Amino acid sequence: MTKVTAQMSVSLDGFYTGPRAAKDTKGWMRGPEAPGFFRVTRWAVDAAAWRERQGFAGGERSVDSEIVEETFAAAGAYVMGRRMFDAGEFPWGDEPPFHAPVFVVTHRPREVLERQGGTSFTFVTEGLERAIELARDAAGGKDVAVSGGGELLRQVLAAGLLDQLDLHIAPVLLGEGQHLFGPGLGLGADDGIELVPDRVVDSPGVTHIRYTVTGRSKLVLDDRGASGELVGPAASEQRSAL
Amino acid sequence: MTKVTAQMSVSLDGFYTGPRAAKDTKGWMRGPEAPGFFRVTRWAVDAAAWRERQGFAGGERSVDSEIVEETFAAAGAYVMGRRMFDAGEFPWGDEPPFHAPVFVVTHRPREVLERQGGTSFTFVTEGLERAIELARDAAGGKDVAVSGGGELLRQVLAAGLLDQLDLHIAPVLLGEGQHLFGPGLGLGADDGIELVPDRVVDSPGVTHIRYTVTGRSKLVLDDRGASGELVGPAASEQRSAL
Repeated sequence: MTKVTAQMSVSLDGFYTGPRAAKDTKGWMRGPEAPGFFRVTRWAVDAAAWRERQGFAGGERSVDSEIVEETFAAAGAYVMGRRMFDAGEFPWGDEPPFHAPVFVVTHRPREVLERQGGTSFTFVTEGLERAIELARDAAGGKDVAVSGGGELLRQVLAAGLLDQLDLHIAPVLLGEGQHLFGPGLGLGADDGIELVPDRVVDSPGVTHIRYTVTGRSKLVLDDRGASGELVGPAASEQRSAL
Repeated sequence: MTKVTAQMSVSLDGFYTGPRAAKDTKGWMRGPEAPGFFRVTRWAVDAAAWRERQGFAGGERSVDSEIVEETFAAAGAYVMGRRMFDAGEFPWGDEPPFHAPVFVVTHRPREVLERQGGTSFTFVTEGLERAIELARDAAGGKDVAVSGGGELLRQVLAAGLLDQLDLHIAPVLLGEGQHLFGPGLGLGADDGIELVPDRVVDSPGVTHIRYTVTGRSKLVLDDRGASGELVGPAASEQRSAL
């Protein structure tokens, strides 16, 4: 059954890239986003399966590489934000790495772009849900992968449309940058989005956690189970432990 | 050998508690911090070993409970921030859960407090490093545990004094709250604090990752290994994958 999935690499403090540049004068590579972005995605860039897909030599045959392979194999279609497409259109060249239909959520109508290797870009102006619907139809029973950026992922989560989230947690603290999650989720102090960790794969350079998204729910104060103590006076005690 | 360690429970989006109240009129338990805090620490509160230490009945004998047990057993002394002590002093009562010497970093001198069960509170006005030094001497060869709060942990990390970080990642997105990490680390866009994931223990309700802190280092742009491609034009391609 087709699931809607997302795969993101983040730092241990939750950034998927460095801070956004105030003004793009020097090019993305020389701007403040790049160092953080390269660091959190290093595990993939070093993996043989990622390099092959990009047409690069070398790379390691590791558990990380198997994760990359699995990720590409699972996706039958992609949904992408407009800013990510704009950044990628020219660098991706004649044979973008997707090898599948990509649906770009945008306000600007544009003809479908056909590329080599099975990639096409379809520009969807009827909103996120419609883009996911089209991708679902095009996925041939495989998954629909939300390929980014962070803003689109937050929209998909906030709308309750994400089934599975693969987080690749790079063991680094960046201190600043663009948070993958955040206020864009539209959650109040009493609400959360619950997930279940289904699979954890650890490697020396990254921890891969696959979550099934359960959905939005109210946070509860008294969750000490069935043993009946009142939680009030002990609240601060909990601060002491773990 | 004595290590300086810290153990913190965080949401998947990096919050260790809900948003701080603008003004504490209703008490902590009814304020905005509590729901998030209870959610991220639920795994511990449900564990038998945590409940025993608090004098509560019940709880589950699970891998989570073993983690709690291990955590208490490893610590020979604690270092704590002043705000955390203030919040805990009365609720912790006559027998606080530490059962070891606790060193509180504060600007206000105060006599040592002796409590039952082996807990004492020593107020250190000569700064964080001195508190850690005193805790190290008192730890009897066991570890010094930084018990919180978040601000103290960031100071310890920023000062390069932390050897090991145990993160307990609760599978929930809170959207807002107090970030465990953040700008307090004093990192620029080109700097990171590197860690190595040494152990991952997964359970249905939480993912436990133990990190060794390697230390501060410069982030690099071209980290594609030894195969020699220039990274420039392909930068945006990386946005496409993972």
